[in-house]
This record gives sequence, C-alpha cells and structure tokens, in this order.
Amino acid sequence: MPKRTAVHARDIVEAQGLAQRRSLAKAITLLESTRTDHRAQADELLTALLPHSGKSLRLGISGVPGVGKSTFIEALGLYLIDKGHRVAVLAVDPSSSVSGGSILGDKTRMEQLSMHERAYIRPSPSSGTLGGVAEKTREAMLVCEAAGFDIVIVETVGVGQSETAVQGMSDMFVLMQLPNAGDDLQAIKKGVMELADLVVINKADIDAHAALRAEAQITSSLRLLGISGNPHDPHSDQYWHPQVLKISALQGQGLDAFWEAVTTFQRLQSANGLLASRRQHQALAWMWERIDAGLKQQFKNNPLVRGQLPAITAAVQSGQMAASTAARHLLAVLGSSAPAAPV
Amino acid sequence: MPKRTAVHARDIVEAQGLAQRRSLAKAITLLESTRTDHRAQADELLTALLPHSGKSLRLGISGVPGVGKSTFIEALGLYLIDKGHRVAVLAVDPSSSVSGGSILGDKTRMEQLSMHERAYIRPSPSSGTLGGVAEKTREAMLVCEAAGFDIVIVETVGVGQSETAVQGMSDMFVLMQLPNAGDDLQAIKKGVMELADLVVINKADIDAHAALRAEAQITSSLRLLGISGNPHDPHSDQYWHPQVLKISALQGQGLDAFWEAVTTFQRLQSANGLLASRRQHQALAWMWERIDAGLKQQFKNNPLVRGQLPAITAAVQSGQMAASTAARHLLAVLGSSAPAAPV
Repeated sequence: MPKRTAVHARDIVEAQGLAQRRSLAKAITLLESTRTDHRAQADELLTALLPHSGKSLRLGISGVPGVGKSTFIEALGLYLIDKGHRVAVLAVDPSSSVSGGSILGDKTRMEQLSMHERAYIRPSPSSGTLGGVAEKTREAMLVCEAAGFDIVIVETVGVGQSETAVQGMSDMFVLMQLPNAGDDLQAIKKGVMELADLVVINKADIDAHAALRAEAQITSSLRLLGISGNPHDPHSDQYWHPQVLKISALQGQGLDAFWEAVTTFQRLQSANGLLASRRQHQALAWMWERIDAGLKQQFKNNPLVRGQLPAITAAVQSGQMAASTAARHLLAVLGSSAPAAPV
Repeated sequence: MPKRTAVHARDIVEAQGLAQRRSLAKAITLLESTRTDHRAQADELLTALLPHSGKSLRLGISGVPGVGKSTFIEALGLYLIDKGHRVAVLAVDPSSSVSGGSILGDKTRMEQLSMHERAYIRPSPSSGTLGGVAEKTREAMLVCEAAGFDIVIVETVGVGQSETAVQGMSDMFVLMQLPNAGDDLQAIKKGVMELADLVVINKADIDAHAALRAEAQITSSLRLLGISGNPHDPHSDQYWHPQVLKISALQGQGLDAFWEAVTTFQRLQSANGLLASRRQHQALAWMWERIDAGLKQQFKNNPLVRGQLPAITAAVQSGQMAASTAARHLLAVLGSSAPAAPV
C-alpha cells in the first residue's frame, strides 16, 4: 500500500494535462473517503504531497446566496488564466449534505471556467459537520497546490461558521456584499466583516447610488470598528489594511482593481512576515480543531459513556443534577475505561 | 464527609442572618476550591442544594468599563431591596486572575449595597480560563438561590467571550451602552447586541441629544438585524422583543421603567414557556462545555500525548506534517493508552 500511494503522489505532482486532472480528482476522492483503510492511505498521500504544497495564493471568497459569487469567480478565473495562472476552485458548504447538492455541484454555473484545461473546479464535500467539510477542502487545497495550481479559490455561502473556516484556510479573505441597507450590519453581526481583508460590493452597475452609499457605509463601519488601520502609525504603509471596492462581476468591471488589491496584499504581507505567520497559526488552529472534534467523538462513542449519557442528560434537564457535576461524572466514567499507566 | 456536607447544605438553606451569610461564603469558597477532595464535597453540596435552587430571577448585565455598571447595580439593588427582594451580585471576569483583582473585588464600588443585610456581593472567581470562572459563578448562583436570594445579578465587563457565558447563565441579558458613536457597532461585532434582551443607554442625563441619537441608532440596528420581532406575527404580543431604554444610573433615573421591562419579560416568557426551555438549554450547553474542556484537559495531561506533542506541533508548524494527519496521530496515541474493552 505505501508503495502504491507514493507512486500515486508522484503521478499527481509530475503528470501533465488530462491524466493529471484525472489523478487529481482520484486523490481528492481518496481524501474524502470515510473508510478507515482509505484514511491511512490518505495520510500517507498527504505527507508525500506536503513538500510540494503551499506555493499558491489561497483566496477565500464569501457572500450570501445571490451576491454573484459564481459569476465573479468565473470572470476572475478566466482573467487569471489569461495572465498565465492555473486556477483551482474549491468550496466549503456544510449544507450540501442536507440539500443533497453543493453550491458548486452544478458546474454549468461556471461553464467556461470549468471547461478550461488550466482550471479545476471541485464541489464542496458533503460529509456532514462543518469541521469535516472544511477538513476535506483543506486537504484538497494541498493536493491542488502539489498539482501545480498557483491560485486556489475557496468559496463559501456562509452557512453557520463556514466563513470562519474559509478565512482559516486562506491567505486573503474576501467578503462580497450587495449594496443593500443592513447588509453590512448582518456581516458585522456574524463577525465576518472583521475577518475580511477586502470587501467587494458587487452589482455596482445596477444602482450606482446604492453602491456608493454602501461603500461609504462599510468604510465608516471599518473605521468605527478600528479595523481599517491606525493612520498615526508611522509603519502603517508596511501592513495591509482592509479596503472596500465596487465591482460588477457580470460586466467584468473592477477585475483589474481587485487583482491589484490582491497582489498588493500579497506583496506587503509577504514582506512583513504576516502571511507566513498566518499560515503557521492556521495549521495549528486546524490541528486543535480536529483534536477537539476527535475527542468529542471518542467520548460519544465510548460504550460506558453511551450507557450513562441518556439518564444523566435527563437528570440535568430536569434539574436533579448540576450540569458541572454531570460533566465531571461522565468524564470520570470515560477515565475509568482507561488505565492509569500507558499500555 | 457526606454527613458533614449534608448538614452544611441544610445550614445554608435554613440558617438566617449573618450566620447564613457566613455559611454562604464558606459554601462558595468550597465550590471555588481546586483541591480534588474539595471537588467531591462540592458535588455533594451542589446535589443537596439543587432542589432549593432555581427560584430566582437571573439577570445578566454586561457593558464596557466606564459604562456605569457598578453605579447601576448598586442603585438597582437598593431599589429592589426596598421592594422586599433579596439581591445577590456575582461576577464573571476572566481577567481577574491576570490583573490580580476582580472587577467586583473592591466592595467600596457598591458601598451601600454591600453593607445591606439583604444583599450579598461576591467578586469574580479568579481561576484562569473563562470556562472555569463561569463554572464557579454558575455554581455560586445556585448556592445564593438556595440561600433565599430571589434576584441574582451577574455582571461582566465583556472580556473575550464572557458576555456569551453570562447570557448562558441568565434568564434575561441586559447590555449597557454609552451614547457614543460606534458603540453599537462594537456590540454588534462582538455578537453581544444579538444576545441582549434589553439594551440600556446609560448616562442619558449628560447629553440628551447623544442619548436620543444612540437610542434611534440601536433601535434601527435591532430592526435591520431582524431581532426586534416581526410586527406581522399575530402572536407577537405573547413573546418578549428586545427593547432599548435610556437611563441615568447616577441620578437613579429610569429604574422604574427598567424594572417594568424586566417584570414584563418575566411574565411573558414564563407564560409562553421560553424561560423554562432557556434554562434547560443552558444546563445542557453548560454540561457539554464542561465536557469539552475536560476532554481537552485529559488529552493534554495524557503522558503519551505530552511526550509527542512538542515534536508534532513543530512538524505541523514547519509544514512537514499536515494538521489533520497530526490530529489523527495524536488521537490514536491517546486511544492506544485506553483498552478497547471497559474495565
């Protein structure tokens, strides 16, 4: 098995054209598998790929349904291919397992881009929890990087905490907004405004006045929230400060300005070291997020805990047992099924 | 031990006056102790007290430093004592272990109230993490209820996620605001506006215009965020909808209106069952929060994990090992120290 996986990894990194695309899809399918034996292979594959990964710009893009994400990503993707880049588009959509289809499942949404040989589009994995979906997408990102894609776009529709997950795997996080009243408040409320490195107001061609108003509103919000930089800081020009841009994805307006902002971001944050430290921080946060989820799963799967959990939950709900007492009891139950000394 | 604790519990519930206050403080100190043998006693005490608890109104009050929380709580406490209530004031301040003092450590901040025999003021426990601090405060709340306090006020200054913790232990959550531009955005950004059952604008006497402007701004935000109720819902009057009130804690202005809002909240949410379901939900959420924290602690204390964690963390940080692979490996290490079959 290890031998086959190693060859597999080299295939992906070295092969070209369609063959590569096929082995890329195969590798991601292996990573998305929930079979235990596949998981071991997947970990070997990941470890083999890792030295070849990390060389792309990771761009997270979030926005509510109808904001025009697909239109924008298609236009941006073709624009970047034209500049000589290779573009992979991935998605994080924890609702896809419920709705039965991913936000990117229908490739006709990005018809031109999906047919291009220098592009690769992968719908969101549908493995249930946000943590699980995000993990698969993160791993798919590493595979795409090893396969030579130098721009990886991760899209999310913003279900639950999916923006936080996407921001946690991207170098730069872009929030797409509509020029509607209250849209910025919703983004502030969800804590997404604070995560954004760049806010893009789409559909600026439909109502120029509304777009201007939205731009002023969001700029003022960023200032009031203290996330648009300190003008009195003499080193301020060495750091990126979140900006607001108006575009029209449908008309292809604003792509140049958008890409200029992205490259400025990349240049500044590479020079000041924040890009590298952001990735280190993301990797550790990801590890701990997965550990927390795994611990909870081990807890819930423990036969002793499973036996006692229903009665204890009922006692807590009915007010017969304090919640902290219940937690301590269940943790002791779990602990009693482990020996004090290591095996 | 069990016998002594049982007597202790009866003491608290039945004793009167100063003796009671002394045993109350003693009980809370026992609950706050981190000694393992004390923890077992504390659990017995909690279980003994539980049937006598839960009969108070639990009022959470949050606001940034300088908003006037102490002044307001002292005025409110004296107002309620005057109406025949017994008032306990607790605090959640996870920074108290860092700063060496609690926001309520200095009782002179509420001089009159702290001296009143129908009031009990307890500073924030200082046990480090927010989860630990909140747990102690939750338990102290149960003790105060068993001791006959029918109003329990829990104050927080809003460090980290402490507002969420306080909202998670109160029947009604009050957010205190200053009439400053951007104050509402900060609260929306932190997700606190969304948690508030009542928003109180303090210091309305200093600048009446600013207070009016803040009131209009917050009312509009609540509407845009969709948390001020649906006017087209025919059953709308059976549910509480978050409101905005102007007060002056220093002048004692607005206490009547505040208390009327609180009693209306209590009447409506008791009748429609939301108060009871909120408490059930809180108890379960508290149990799971404590389980998660406990699992993480067990993980970090495991000798096999401790042995491998530094090298694996370094490998993840340097990009030699994928974060998900690292998490799976460490979870397997933990699992290998537990037998498959229960002991």
